[in-house]
Amino acid sequence: MTDTTDDGFLGGRLRLLQPKAGYRAGVDPVLLAAAVPARAGESVLDIGCGVGAAMLCLGRRVPGLDLLGVERHERLAALALENARRNDIPAEIVVADLLNLPKDVRERSFDHVITNPPFFDRAKGSPAGREDKEAGRGETVPLSDWLDASLRRLGPRGRLSVIQHAGRLPDILTGLAARLGDITVLPICARQGRDASLVIVTGRKGSRAAARIAFPFVMHEGAAHLRDGDDYAPEARAVLREGAPLPLAD
Amino acid sequence: MTDTTDDGFLGGRLRLLQPKAGYRAGVDPVLLAAAVPARAGESVLDIGCGVGAAMLCLGRRVPGLDLLGVERHERLAALALENARRNDIPAEIVVADLLNLPKDVRERSFDHVITNPPFFDRAKGSPAGREDKEAGRGETVPLSDWLDASLRRLGPRGRLSVIQHAGRLPDILTGLAARLGDITVLPICARQGRDASLVIVTGRKGSRAAARIAFPFVMHEGAAHLRDGDDYAPEARAVLREGAPLPLAD
Repeated sequence: MTDTTDDGFLGGRLRLLQPKAGYRAGVDPVLLAAAVPARAGESVLDIGCGVGAAMLCLGRRVPGLDLLGVERHERLAALALENARRNDIPAEIVVADLLNLPKDVRERSFDHVITNPPFFDRAKGSPAGREDKEAGRGETVPLSDWLDASLRRLGPRGRLSVIQHAGRLPDILTGLAARLGDITVLPICARQGRDASLVIVTGRKGSRAAARIAFPFVMHEGAAHLRDGDDYAPEARAVLREGAPLPLAD
Repeated sequence: MTDTTDDGFLGGRLRLLQPKAGYRAGVDPVLLAAAVPARAGESVLDIGCGVGAAMLCLGRRVPGLDLLGVERHERLAALALENARRNDIPAEIVVADLLNLPKDVRERSFDHVITNPPFFDRAKGSPAGREDKEAGRGETVPLSDWLDASLRRLGPRGRLSVIQHAGRLPDILTGLAARLGDITVLPICARQGRDASLVIVTGRKGSRAAARIAFPFVMHEGAAHLRDGDDYAPEARAVLREGAPLPLAD
């Protein structure tokens, strides 16, 4: 296991094995999980679950979910399953390409679909050269196809939650606008006054409610990094270190 | 003239005659004008210019623009022309439906197209029953057609600037995503922490620059209205009362 690390998330409430090389879970799956208003007994599909970071963060916060992760990379899927077991969170993992899901997954629909599609200028914490690695792993599914596959798995009144680089907002909304209602756009900004770095978009199937642009969630205090150590804003610390939900998941 | 009012904008730097009844210019055309990075000598088309509020706010801030407004309602168009003359801002006004522009307008392209499409839950300050009035005035052009007509009038590297109710962001981005680059989404929030009420979207033809979600522009200070009179934040006061540009127009 020297090619994996064992990292704490949610202030150590969750531990994840993940490969040293390639995409490594950072704040984005934690924020995605915090955005999902799931309730015990509901079903959740994580499309492209990787080592299970988002679905397991959600499972830690909300007990009693019916969790299914789909991941095309066998090694990541195996780590996701191991991560679920080590954290004692019941979850099913299927090795499959999202564009070619097995019949038993295609026959199911979900109360929540969550997804953190790959994006090449993704988060900090990713090693140099990971664009190549990601492309090398074949993650070149167009975002529109990725969203289509996600939308197809939503049950009636099912809610989709997506996190992406903020620059992809036009593509995300183009993919979702005609097919979801009650859309909420939540920009994630490093600091007050800055452009958003990430954006969470959620929406509900079968709803006709108007879209909302929520006030940004600000990760860090102050206008610049001044102190040693992390300088998370209290709300961000609650989400990242204590497993609190984002306001839009209330 | 008893059915019109004569109102000051930009701290009295601009005066506008407008009908007492129906849609009345509020903060939205002022904000739209403040978002446009126009330079002397450039051409600007205001689609659905009404009494000319947005184009004349812009003309007041940036001298030497070549301004053209298109308005289907003869009375509003006449007021727009009179408003241009009274404020000594050179401008041309054409009475035309945006879906059926006269040939000489169709043969022109512009450095900037600005537009504030009608929306039924538009701004404060509109009299009760104005939904009926707006519909009664026949302003039932779908937003997608409105945006298409605007996009067609952009010259090479031309910039479109739109203001709308925040709830229409998915429709706006669906209409623009594939056809503009360098898209900026600027949410306008009444107060810190609130959902956006309005959104300004700008983008440039022929650009491949990534989209940005800017930090919201916050109109009022504090979490609630506490003082008599206006409680505009200093940045909002500069835009509304002094004719300053928004940061994204720098």
